[in-house]
Amino acid sequence: MKAVNIGLIGLGTVGSGTVEILRRNNRDISGRAGRDIQVSRIAVRDPGKAREVDIAGIPLGDDPMLVVDDPEVEIVVELVGGDTLAREVVLRAIENGKHVVTANKALIALHGNEVFAKAQEKGVMVAFEAAVAGGIPIIKSLREGLSANRIEWVAGIINGTCNYILTRMENDGLDFSDVLRDAQALGYAEADPAFDIEGIDAAHKLTILASIAFGIPLQFDRVHVEGITGVSLEDIRYAGELGYRIKHLGITRRQHHGIELRVHPVLIPAKRLIANVHGVMNAALIRADAVGPTLFYGAGAGTEPTGSAVVADIVDVVRALTSDPDNRVPHLAFQPGALARLPIMPMEDVVTAGYLRLRVVNRPGVLAAITRIFGDRDISIDTVLQRGHDEENGEVTIIMLTHNTRDENLAGAISEVEDLSVVIGRINLIRLENLA
Amino acid sequence: MKAVNIGLIGLGTVGSGTVEILRRNNRDISGRAGRDIQVSRIAVRDPGKAREVDIAGIPLGDDPMLVVDDPEVEIVVELVGGDTLAREVVLRAIENGKHVVTANKALIALHGNEVFAKAQEKGVMVAFEAAVAGGIPIIKSLREGLSANRIEWVAGIINGTCNYILTRMENDGLDFSDVLRDAQALGYAEADPAFDIEGIDAAHKLTILASIAFGIPLQFDRVHVEGITGVSLEDIRYAGELGYRIKHLGITRRQHHGIELRVHPVLIPAKRLIANVHGVMNAALIRADAVGPTLFYGAGAGTEPTGSAVVADIVDVVRALTSDPDNRVPHLAFQPGALARLPIMPMEDVVTAGYLRLRVVNRPGVLAAITRIFGDRDISIDTVLQRGHDEENGEVTIIMLTHNTRDENLAGAISEVEDLSVVIGRINLIRLENLA
Repeated sequence: MKAVNIGLIGLGTVGSGTVEILRRNNRDISGRAGRDIQVSRIAVRDPGKAREVDIAGIPLGDDPMLVVDDPEVEIVVELVGGDTLAREVVLRAIENGKHVVTANKALIALHGNEVFAKAQEKGVMVAFEAAVAGGIPIIKSLREGLSANRIEWVAGIINGTCNYILTRMENDGLDFSDVLRDAQALGYAEADPAFDIEGIDAAHKLTILASIAFGIPLQFDRVHVEGITGVSLEDIRYAGELGYRIKHLGITRRQHHGIELRVHPVLIPAKRLIANVHGVMNAALIRADAVGPTLFYGAGAGTEPTGSAVVADIVDVVRALTSDPDNRVPHLAFQPGALARLPIMPMEDVVTAGYLRLRVVNRPGVLAAITRIFGDRDISIDTVLQRGHDEENGEVTIIMLTHNTRDENLAGAISEVEDLSVVIGRINLIRLENLA
Repeated sequence: MKAVNIGLIGLGTVGSGTVEILRRNNRDISGRAGRDIQVSRIAVRDPGKAREVDIAGIPLGDDPMLVVDDPEVEIVVELVGGDTLAREVVLRAIENGKHVVTANKALIALHGNEVFAKAQEKGVMVAFEAAVAGGIPIIKSLREGLSANRIEWVAGIINGTCNYILTRMENDGLDFSDVLRDAQALGYAEADPAFDIEGIDAAHKLTILASIAFGIPLQFDRVHVEGITGVSLEDIRYAGELGYRIKHLGITRRQHHGIELRVHPVLIPAKRLIANVHGVMNAALIRADAVGPTLFYGAGAGTEPTGSAVVADIVDVVRALTSDPDNRVPHLAFQPGALARLPIMPMEDVVTAGYLRLRVVNRPGVLAAITRIFGDRDISIDTVLQRGHDEENGEVTIIMLTHNTRDENLAGAISEVEDLSVVIGRINLIRLENLA
């Protein structure tokens, strides 16, 4: 049977991995797909650049539109990243009736609704497994493997840079800034790390996970986003003493009145499997009504892990080439007509427990004054940690764990406590989830 | 669009879960599948028996062949278990041109080659996600999610009963027989537990995993099978002291000259994620060339977790109803013509490290005599643990960890050491895998 022609746009980290895997595992892949798969045309920014990957014999140019308009190309693989050129390229490929595979989380999170509507109209597939958690087949697992279930929540370590930094801080007792420098030197963090450590990257991925979990449109602008810059070594140590680890999670949860959609650091019980996912590795913990908890773990980034997801998508698309478009796996898990209109909840309404670190003047009545404020707002305190030998210059650190409470209540109590004259500086809040 | 009619055979644990999920999550499921799915006919052994699950309005009889021969039924769901009636029912369903979904690991492990050949001939699908690791979508992940990869090995906790027993022994310091009694009382172990604790159930599942990982025919009779009855509380404690946990694993690994296929207890480093999978939960750790390590965790048994996998298979089959049979996901991951002829390696040729527990007369020269035997067979010793205060009646326990060695060498050395007059009783061997 005739080989399927792939047009590749972008030959950076993921593009190289994709080409290398298709070359090296060609026989296994075609044995699985039932068709030969070949890259028939590539577009890159600089065709003159030396490449490590073997692309001998494949026409290489700098115009992505030549790939997209090539009548021989059946599947366009978009690996340029960003959301401007990528959007143009993908929309034009769809317009031309071509199927698309992309690793681009920003594109899907920001323009996915537009892209999928267009794909639906033209009867083509847009596959994006590589956009979330690299090589872990999490989109497939959630969208197909758990299709029997009502998904209750998803909690994911979906940014390897953040997980690497938090792991090194804990294991090596290093400060955030020292680990960040190391991570940059090792290539685990970008020169401009804001995208990762401020949580934007995780928010893109969580947006996608929430849509396929609950069958809702993509709503990146509704994600509550916090990064890890507010997590100190001190917090990690106190959390450890209390039996918790601090992880940067994307959490989305179905509630009666809407969907929680939030990215922030979280204390989780150290014995949970997901609390034992270390370094640059990713994992997603899903709770669903029939299957209960499931966890999916693997490399969330890197040349070949991400290439693995891109190639798996290509194989899926190849298999579905001749299928009836109405019977394909829907882009957002549910048929377009079956999408839900559940609202995203504002962060104020989200209920979590809290870890609070305060510095106070060590004087009788201080703890009473603080706990009264919490009591007045119906916030129960679960644990207080204050140790005499921590005192320095008449000041002491207090750690408090609260029971579950509305985020707005917690914020109000924190603000009121911060106004007490005996409280020094700001209170550090990290939310706490049991994830059971 | 017309609903898809399901004919269900068997309404025990898994059957009830399947019906309940299809009923409760009907809207979500049809929103994903694009078609309504309804159970149109059920066969059970005793139609008069009281049932907890709501099957009002569904014709119920005791003849499975009426389901299989019903022209309205498009998909036959076989949930009777065993490999005699199940085989008949499934082969006849296929003969009648119907697609089949089954949770039956014995059927697939023992008769899968015959069943899939017949299905291929008739152009129908046989889906069996529920046959391995219950609700974890491990078949889908391996067969589709990792389709870009050359799979290197799979190591799985795929029998919940064994994992429950080993976990309780470790956590509660109980002996094997005490935990087994508890497990039976709680319904985690059958009245006749041999099938689970002797490793047969795990061997069925491993047979299936190996086939879809490496694209080889199903070869249950080639699995090396050991259960957990030889693991003592003492072993679990010594393993713990040395930084390991004992898990009952199914392991299949691609080697230069063939495929390892073995089920037995294994010491694994306690810090590995899979070593932290406790109780009745299942997990499979996969190493593949492009993606690296991935792990899939969840409930391996139970009414709704297994029903979740059955229903996911139904949705998959519904989606593929109109697809070209040549472009479907192949039963054993690879197209029938692309299956490999790799031999299964005899256990003697498998290379692992070993944990050995010996009871010896505490006398000068004993350790030297033992280690000389290992040295003569080129087996290096990694760790020896012998403690003076363990001595009792002039006897002492020695724990030895060896480096990697051929299983045949290890067996030969053990047999020779057992012949020494200073060695009391048998040596307990548990293999050790680093799983890195």
